[in-house]
Amino acid sequence: MRHTISVLVENKFGVLTRVAGLFSGRGYNIDTLNVAPTQEPNTSRMTIVTLGDDATLDQIVKQLNKLVDVIHVLNFQEGEYVDRELVLVKVAVDSKTRAEIMQITDIFRAKIVDVQPATLTIEITGNESKIEKFLDLMKTFGVLDLTRTGKIALPRK
Amino acid sequence: MRHTISVLVENKFGVLTRVAGLFSGRGYNIDTLNVAPTQEPNTSRMTIVTLGDDATLDQIVKQLNKLVDVIHVLNFQEGEYVDRELVLVKVAVDSKTRAEIMQITDIFRAKIVDVQPATLTIEITGNESKIEKFLDLMKTFGVLDLTRTGKIALPRK
Repeated sequence: MRHTISVLVENKFGVLTRVAGLFSGRGYNIDTLNVAPTQEPNTSRMTIVTLGDDATLDQIVKQLNKLVDVIHVLNFQEGEYVDRELVLVKVAVDSKTRAEIMQITDIFRAKIVDVQPATLTIEITGNESKIEKFLDLMKTFGVLDLTRTGKIALPRK
Repeated sequence: MRHTISVLVENKFGVLTRVAGLFSGRGYNIDTLNVAPTQEPNTSRMTIVTLGDDATLDQIVKQLNKLVDVIHVLNFQEGEYVDRELVLVKVAVDSKTRAEIMQITDIFRAKIVDVQPATLTIEITGNESKIEKFLDLMKTFGVLDLTRTGKIALPRK
């Protein structure tokens, strides 16, 4: 099963290594991960998306809670959070396909952020299904390069 | 100095731990990091933003290149890349401040993604200076929760 976990940590050396090590040490694959400072000085938030069984994840969450630099762990359940991801994608274009790609970009409320003679770089933000659908469409034109942030999430309440 | 580094890696167990360990092992602080799959099966891209001296970073890049699962390392130089970050921020509102926050959200082309009686959750995408400016404005209303993806970047060419 797919899980989204948010870990609030003290902004210290090696916290990321220790947290990531807990997952890899148990053979638990991390699909996406991101870490960045929060509004509080000296704390960062990590958002981790993983695929695996619930029992192992429960153990990992327990172990995360025991780490000195971990302040709080949140295991998001469906429906109770808002989640978004950001993707930058570079697509091959020519004079015939440019207009079509621009139309699709418009429909998805995505944004063209760079134009080169044979490429367009597009920024798209959304939930997983929106982004997957957009990227599937872009594949028919040719995806040359792609970078995604991984999911971030906030509880609704 | 601030550095943005992109690392293309094989999608294998423990790669993240090894890469993060290279930085923390040298006392080099990671400001933001994200990792997610690319358009190629079995590869992921990490984008790392760090603060530190150039000489140490050169050593880290050399060592990154020696790791078996690292395919490619890119040390972005100013101006030659497009970069974006995504932030979800939950702001305290009341009947007096809601309209003002919505106006600011509009000006920044940000998006309200959740509404609760006493909070608004806002999604904003942009480069660092745009996001910092928006968050500074939100602080005057009260930032209750915040999660950011860290920067992603793609070369223009």
